[in-house]
Amino acid sequence: MMVVVIHGPNMNLLGVREPDVYGTVTMARIDERVEELAAELGVEVRISQHNSEGAIIDAIQQAGCDADGIVINPGGYTHTSVAIHDALKAVSIPAIEVHLSNILAREEWRHRSMTALACVGVIGGLGAESYLLALRGIVALVEADAGAGS
Amino acid sequence: MMVVVIHGPNMNLLGVREPDVYGTVTMARIDERVEELAAELGVEVRISQHNSEGAIIDAIQQAGCDADGIVINPGGYTHTSVAIHDALKAVSIPAIEVHLSNILAREEWRHRSMTALACVGVIGGLGAESYLLALRGIVALVEADAGAGS
Amino acid sequence: MMVVVIHGPNMNLLGVREPDVYGTVTMARIDERVEELAAELGVEVRISQHNSEGAIIDAIQQAGCDADGIVINPGGYTHTSVAIHDALKAVSIPAIEVHLSNILAREEWRHRSMTALACVGVIGGLGAESYLLALRGIVALVEADAGAGS
Amino acid sequence: MMVVVIHGPNMNLLGVREPDVYGTVTMARIDERVEELAAELGVEVRISQHNSEGAIIDAIQQAGCDADGIVINPGGYTHTSVAIHDALKAVSIPAIEVHLSNILAREEWRHRSMTALACVGVIGGLGAESYLLALRGIVALVEADAGAGS
Amino acid sequence: MMVVVIHGPNMNLLGVREPDVYGTVTMARIDERVEELAAELGVEVRISQHNSEGAIIDAIQQAGCDADGIVINPGGYTHTSVAIHDALKAVSIPAIEVHLSNILAREEWRHRSMTALACVGVIGGLGAESYLLALRGIVALVEADAGAGS
Amino acid sequence: MMVVVIHGPNMNLLGVREPDVYGTVTMARIDERVEELAAELGVEVRISQHNSEGAIIDAIQQAGCDADGIVINPGGYTHTSVAIHDALKAVSIPAIEVHLSNILAREEWRHRSMTALACVGVIGGLGAESYLLALRGIVALVEADAGAGS
Amino acid sequence: MMVVVIHGPNMNLLGVREPDVYGTVTMARIDERVEELAAELGVEVRISQHNSEGAIIDAIQQAGCDADGIVINPGGYTHTSVAIHDALKAVSIPAIEVHLSNILAREEWRHRSMTALACVGVIGGLGAESYLLALRGIVALVEADAGAGS
Amino acid sequence: MMVVVIHGPNMNLLGVREPDVYGTVTMARIDERVEELAAELGVEVRISQHNSEGAIIDAIQQAGCDADGIVINPGGYTHTSVAIHDALKAVSIPAIEVHLSNILAREEWRHRSMTALACVGVIGGLGAESYLLALRGIVALVEADAGAGS
Amino acid sequence: MMVVVIHGPNMNLLGVREPDVYGTVTMARIDERVEELAAELGVEVRISQHNSEGAIIDAIQQAGCDADGIVINPGGYTHTSVAIHDALKAVSIPAIEVHLSNILAREEWRHRSMTALACVGVIGGLGAESYLLALRGIVALVEADAGAGS
Amino acid sequence: MMVVVIHGPNMNLLGVREPDVYGTVTMARIDERVEELAAELGVEVRISQHNSEGAIIDAIQQAGCDADGIVINPGGYTHTSVAIHDALKAVSIPAIEVHLSNILAREEWRHRSMTALACVGVIGGLGAESYLLALRGIVALVEADAGAGS
Amino acid sequence: MMVVVIHGPNMNLLGVREPDVYGTVTMARIDERVEELAAELGVEVRISQHNSEGAIIDAIQQAGCDADGIVINPGGYTHTSVAIHDALKAVSIPAIEVHLSNILAREEWRHRSMTALACVGVIGGLGAESYLLALRGIVALVEADAGAGS
Amino acid sequence: MMVVVIHGPNMNLLGVREPDVYGTVTMARIDERVEELAAELGVEVRISQHNSEGAIIDAIQQAGCDADGIVINPGGYTHTSVAIHDALKAVSIPAIEVHLSNILAREEWRHRSMTALACVGVIGGLGAESYLLALRGIVALVEADAGAGS
Repeated sequence: MMVVVIHGPNMNLLGVREPDVYGTVTMARIDERVEELAAELGVEVRISQHNSEGAIIDAIQQAGCDADGIVINPGGYTHTSVAIHDALKAVSIPAIEVHLSNILAREEWRHRSMTALACVGVIGGLGAESYLLALRGIVALVEADAGAGS
Repeated sequence: MMVVVIHGPNMNLLGVREPDVYGTVTMARIDERVEELAAELGVEVRISQHNSEGAIIDAIQQAGCDADGIVINPGGYTHTSVAIHDALKAVSIPAIEVHLSNILAREEWRHRSMTALACVGVIGGLGAESYLLALRGIVALVEADAGAGS
Repeated sequence: MMVVVIHGPNMNLLGVREPDVYGTVTMARIDERVEELAAELGVEVRISQHNSEGAIIDAIQQAGCDADGIVINPGGYTHTSVAIHDALKAVSIPAIEVHLSNILAREEWRHRSMTALACVGVIGGLGAESYLLALRGIVALVEADAGAGS
Repeated sequence: MMVVVIHGPNMNLLGVREPDVYGTVTMARIDERVEELAAELGVEVRISQHNSEGAIIDAIQQAGCDADGIVINPGGYTHTSVAIHDALKAVSIPAIEVHLSNILAREEWRHRSMTALACVGVIGGLGAESYLLALRGIVALVEADAGAGS
Repeated sequence: MMVVVIHGPNMNLLGVREPDVYGTVTMARIDERVEELAAELGVEVRISQHNSEGAIIDAIQQAGCDADGIVINPGGYTHTSVAIHDALKAVSIPAIEVHLSNILAREEWRHRSMTALACVGVIGGLGAESYLLALRGIVALVEADAGAGS
Repeated sequence: MMVVVIHGPNMNLLGVREPDVYGTVTMARIDERVEELAAELGVEVRISQHNSEGAIIDAIQQAGCDADGIVINPGGYTHTSVAIHDALKAVSIPAIEVHLSNILAREEWRHRSMTALACVGVIGGLGAESYLLALRGIVALVEADAGAGS
Repeated sequence: MMVVVIHGPNMNLLGVREPDVYGTVTMARIDERVEELAAELGVEVRISQHNSEGAIIDAIQQAGCDADGIVINPGGYTHTSVAIHDALKAVSIPAIEVHLSNILAREEWRHRSMTALACVGVIGGLGAESYLLALRGIVALVEADAGAGS
Repeated sequence: MMVVVIHGPNMNLLGVREPDVYGTVTMARIDERVEELAAELGVEVRISQHNSEGAIIDAIQQAGCDADGIVINPGGYTHTSVAIHDALKAVSIPAIEVHLSNILAREEWRHRSMTALACVGVIGGLGAESYLLALRGIVALVEADAGAGS
Repeated sequence: MMVVVIHGPNMNLLGVREPDVYGTVTMARIDERVEELAAELGVEVRISQHNSEGAIIDAIQQAGCDADGIVINPGGYTHTSVAIHDALKAVSIPAIEVHLSNILAREEWRHRSMTALACVGVIGGLGAESYLLALRGIVALVEADAGAGS
Repeated sequence: MMVVVIHGPNMNLLGVREPDVYGTVTMARIDERVEELAAELGVEVRISQHNSEGAIIDAIQQAGCDADGIVINPGGYTHTSVAIHDALKAVSIPAIEVHLSNILAREEWRHRSMTALACVGVIGGLGAESYLLALRGIVALVEADAGAGS
Repeated sequence: MMVVVIHGPNMNLLGVREPDVYGTVTMARIDERVEELAAELGVEVRISQHNSEGAIIDAIQQAGCDADGIVINPGGYTHTSVAIHDALKAVSIPAIEVHLSNILAREEWRHRSMTALACVGVIGGLGAESYLLALRGIVALVEADAGAGS
Repeated sequence: MMVVVIHGPNMNLLGVREPDVYGTVTMARIDERVEELAAELGVEVRISQHNSEGAIIDAIQQAGCDADGIVINPGGYTHTSVAIHDALKAVSIPAIEVHLSNILAREEWRHRSMTALACVGVIGGLGAESYLLALRGIVALVEADAGAGS
């Protein structure tokens, strides 16, 4: 099983970026923990980070060709991107949206998630842990589907 | 460590209730899986289900006295209940909100969560798995806080 | 055939309560007329009144177990209660919502009915008569369904 | 006693028109049942159908001259027609609005009823039965008024 | 100079229609006073009343062919009719909108005038007097235009 | 009979001020025409202009003491001033609101008139003529009231 | 194959009506071009124009009986008419909505199309050309459906 | 004279609950001060606290039977509860709403008070003092009414 | 201790002004009662009334220099005045807002208080009593602050 | 004559992507048909597809340098992209917006087109046919402009 | 060249007023710096501060008579004052609006500027520097216009 | 000191692009003037232009590593880009937003600036001059911070 993890814009600045909101953990450290858990769960992961909306769509389309599930943090594109939403709908594998912070408890304009409309589920507010839980979730989901399909 | 799991209104009907939305797993089965995972993680859980908003507030207040964290599915009260929101704010332990379905991808009026404003994080859309991930999340959170405080 | 009639909050004050809006008929008198009509139509009725949202949900869940149809006046909970809405959706028997007054012709915030979204139909504005027509309606509905199913 | 029944636009297509929404009963069959019930209740009915908003207003004005009550299904004009609303207010006899479908459970823009603001009550969601209940309702209403006035 | 006066829906019921809102003057009496003033001002008037939106559009189009100005009370169509608005824009003669009542001081949904967007001016709240002032206004306007053009 | 005419802010700049919107007539010329018509109608007028909201309220309160009616152009205060609205409601004489331009056909935020809610009627869009028609209107109104009261 | 072309209100004034918005082509010239193209494509057309909403509904219902597709320009009724929307839904043949101007680039209140909700597609902004393209479109659509059905 | 004081949900946690918002005074201490003032003013008080909306309605209905006035802090139910609003309207004694904090200066969704619509007055922002002033207010009110009625 | 009491626009008309809304007590009588209570409480008061927004700001700024607290009824400026709001924020003494009527139970546009955002608390709906309670409240507040500071 | 055809994000997935919404035709097949029609009409076409908003802007700017017209399907960027809107406005050649599906009949948030505000016209809902009609439309438009200019 | 600088309400309290928002610089110090820069740029300045909306309008009208440009900080009147907006439009000299704080990054209700609609440009968020930049800007603007006009 | 100047999408078309809105100055000329002023002020500048949102985020992140301040014109991304907003927040150097036109005086949907929420200040409406003033502003800001920090 292959899971694609996609970090959206500005995730590369984690650790320095508004630490009172996003914590002091770096993206490299999150990736490390994700890879450890993937190894533990016996799944492959491919992780990438993109500041460009178009590059995120490319990554989703690529995942649609060679992966079994997506864990995506669309960052600032979460709230408005119909194009990422459409890409997630266009591929036939499930996706879970993650957020480091609890977007429902921040500014009004962060409450809406356009991209979550095209995801199976959403996990937010738990920092790096959000990614780990999402990985567990997507693996459980793909396994359940595989079980149902066999 | 003690974690309180609170099921909101109509959760007792799971399995029969709109199975295309909520799946066919029963609440009893979810509780079983939550208890298994709790045992595995070495934490205690207390689970209850309430149809009344007031009873949910009572349960939260009780948890504030004798527990370390809350996993709550406020059900239909999610979207409007300022009183449950206030109860969650009033106690000094962290809470994670869970939903079986992805509320951000359903009817417009289910998108807003009043109660999530008072939670650390939200996990939704993954069925029974949402509860398990939330339990893992709250345990990680309480342990991290304990670590930070020691 | 068994029909459950559920009166929402403050219905027990009918007759004294804002008589220019709700008329001078008491709840007891409405219940009497409902029972007379039920006898005439050859159906059984179980009538209850609740001030608590949770108790109304309990009553709906109970009806789901042993009745064929519901006539419900959710009173003040009509406009906001997702939990009652969910309960009505969760049970597999049909419900008709009734109102003594014409909620569409009163204050702006009474125009929306969250609970009606989960009902087959709505009858409002005709005072005690609303209940009688709803009883006739639900009986016709259940009979038609039974006919269709046989 | 004379009751005027007014069918709004497209009601003449009932039976063929979106049967999953409006059912397969034809307008002719509804009229038949209305006339049977009228006979049973000992009242006269005059039934007409109009696609034009102006013709509906004419029919309401006519009813104001020679009838005792109105049962009206304003169809698509329900949601926006101030002119029909004004006509219903202008005549001194009571009206009950009916709908075959439950407008409160359909598209957002069907939730508001401009014309119901000028009616005594509203009955919706019960198909042809809506008309029969409305006829019973208006007869009860007129009789009660007559009783009060005598 | 020829001025066309167009009464919208339900104006034919004036005098009987909600007298506390619209007064007790009949449409016939208003027409009489309009004709007297027209004679006094030396202009011709053509007055008509229509319940149908289409007929009002016909009347406006006709006025565009053979008249110099329009005084129009669009009644209930005021608030929503883009079609009447378009007709008023389509003809090259000026129009003044009149209302018996002060629409800005009534229900919220009467505050907007779609048709006034296509008129030179609006006069409201002064009962029959609104029509007389509008006639004076349109005559002054046409005379001023004629003077400017000569 | 005494009628008070109140010009709101910036009216003193008429003639120079955005002539494509407000025309080239000066306030002095409007006052002259108002005085001529007053003489013709046999009524007294007191005219003043104020840039300050408080001064307009003073003028209304003064009118309430010694005049029979008010013609007021609240200018830019029209759309938001609850205080002028309250002053107009507080005095027991009728007022007509006038506007040089047709506020319903200009920017969205000019469509609402807070002050018109407290006036008998509104006349707008006819330039200086608006004032003359309003004077005629208020005189007719006061005379009718006097007639009714005698 | 028979295609019905329905012109909405004020279309009969094309050429004179706001030429900067709608161009100088007359309705007669559009009809001529539509008929030429119909001949070229080997389909029959029936063209009519109506100022009345009810008459447009009649025309749609007639088309439902004897035609294969509809090209409709609902004019001012586009933005609010639920009744025309319902008529288009009620008949089982496809419709394409056309507009001479680009309604999405004009006043805010022209952006919404209630009637387009019931059409297969919309073509706007291309003047008379809009009708020709719509005719081509509806013919292609009907042919494709016929092909699929054979 | 008997005054009923009703504390809404979570008031029992005062002192521990978000002390920067609600202060450090406990509910017991507020009750003590209320009772002292009641004694000073020579009136009887009955104080209760409820987490359940239904229980608050019960308490209001009870007050309607045996008390002269109500001081109510509906807590989190303030902003949405039509049912409490209806209960306050249903009883014939006056009520004053109190809040410890100034709800108009907190989160947007706390600005609206559904329950205040059914109260004579509102006092907020003054902590425990709010209750004392409300008690003084309700006593003055009842005495004035008694004076007026005698 | 010195408390400044500021009456907003139209308060000078109390007694004559819409007595069904504001009662028949005059401003002079309110001032008398305020002064009596001030004497009783051993504090000094300075009372003024202003129709002008600017004058109210001047009075607040003056209070900021020589007083300990403010009781203010901003009247019609309550709902929109950012400038008064800013003045109240700019001075370092506490203010309580008062209203004779219950603004939350009147017209929709009176529900919002821009000025209350800058006050410690709000008291409304209790007529002249509102002022007396506010005076008590501000005195208690200043004394508590003084106690805390000593 | 050169026409640039720009496909927005996810168009490269056509055929596999949500076939019930977008059909089973691939982008390659659409391009083929567009090229065939271009040949038939004697015009040159340059077709490209881009997932990135910036790349679409580049393509529009390039078209502004060397083409005569644009046919653009902005995909998910349609609803929010001010930057594409600005690019279309910045170049001096006309553009027609196309959509495979009828965006006015889908989710609420797809109804608005920010980019259509900068286009001459819009064609939607006709699948691949939308592109062919748009090509015909843009050619007719450019030819008409050329004719007008010669 | 003469530039008029107008400080709105509460600007006289700068330095004491909410220093965390507005800084500790006094208005006197800002004026000093503005005058120094004016001297450096060789232009004359006239500076005034007003708490009253009417006085600000007077100052704008005066500037319209004898100055070449306006630098205005409308303070709390920024967000609602149509009257100041109209005054700025009424005079024929350009104005630049300044704010000490960045109004677009503060409370929602400070985001809109009614007065900026009538200004050439806006400068905000840079404290006293905002005024200096605005002075430079208005001087550059007037010089450019003079150059263009010569 | 190093200041980074970032031009958003379509800025490369300045001079040709809608000259009535944006003027005839080219981007090259603006850059020249910015560089001249930078030299005069003794600061270094790095200027770039990007059509892609991702590239702008890259440029901001780069500036965060090696510059002291940012002057940014986010162009069409201003109104919706949470991602650019987040990038500006993520870096620890101050930014000033500039616009050639006065966005607050253009289309409604240009009034909101999502990116300005993350900037110290905003300067708009002064054409090329906006950039020069912003450069002066950011230099003053950085110098003040440096002074405060030393």
